[in-house]
Amino acid sequence: MRSGEGEARRRFAGARVARLATVRPDGAPHLVPVTFALDGDTVWWAVDAKPKGTVALQRLRNVAHEPRVSLLVDHYDDDWSALWWVRADGTGAVAGGADAAHGLELLAARYAGDTIAPPPGPVVAVTVTRWAWWAARPSPGWPAGPGTSPT
Amino acid sequence: MRSGEGEARRRFAGARVARLATVRPDGAPHLVPVTFALDGDTVWWAVDAKPKGTVALQRLRNVAHEPRVSLLVDHYDDDWSALWWVRADGTGAVAGGADAAHGLELLAARYAGDTIAPPPGPVVAVTVTRWAWWAARPSPGWPAGPGTSPT
Repeated sequence: MRSGEGEARRRFAGARVARLATVRPDGAPHLVPVTFALDGDTVWWAVDAKPKGTVALQRLRNVAHEPRVSLLVDHYDDDWSALWWVRADGTGAVAGGADAAHGLELLAARYAGDTIAPPPGPVVAVTVTRWAWWAARPSPGWPAGPGTSPT
Repeated sequence: MRSGEGEARRRFAGARVARLATVRPDGAPHLVPVTFALDGDTVWWAVDAKPKGTVALQRLRNVAHEPRVSLLVDHYDDDWSALWWVRADGTGAVAGGADAAHGLELLAARYAGDTIAPPPGPVVAVTVTRWAWWAARPSPGWPAGPGTSPT
């Protein structure tokens, strides 16, 4: 494991929200926030039942057309020496059967305290192929500057 | 102006950080956090001088190859009824001359209290072509649910 990768994964896993970038069939980028669960090198996210018109479906159409996705967790502070981010690039696919149930269990366990029930919509598994990160200052187990790690 | 658009713009403009999605020349999405300034329908961001290896350059290469970009501001809360996000889709281009100086002035004004000097690198202007937003619950001037507005 590359120097910093363990801490990068830990920070990503601990975040409550990530941003999901996909590519539309017409080639333009698409971006939404997602709740998620990290399990090894798999990031799980799901489409919930809240009314969103076609918004929720767009990300699924995108993944079906272009499975490569990018997920970002970042920390902002007006003291820029505290900035950091972690990105997971990978390929997404809608899960089915036991896999989907496993993903939903992981999501429900993470967000169990919420007032809205676990999402009943499609569940997507992103297999991470590359971790990338950046930190403005060093911290234990994490050098300052950029880092990447193929999984 | 569509119902909710004013409040969506206000919330986007007030955020301290956004996430920028671009598309790599090979067609995969790319995602980084950016500090920014909103001026009318233009979102300004810049590449600063912090050591980032090729990271800072990737987003510029992407915009040169595919000018369509997406910028997201979102609010997370473990009470999911408080969730909201605002997205600006548009086209980016590196600014030069007086335009670049104007963008840098806007960025410096927003982040003047920070410990790092204004970025001396390339300045990018994103012309927003579409605003999109979503809120879990209604608030003054902002209905719940999704909204979009061509500019």
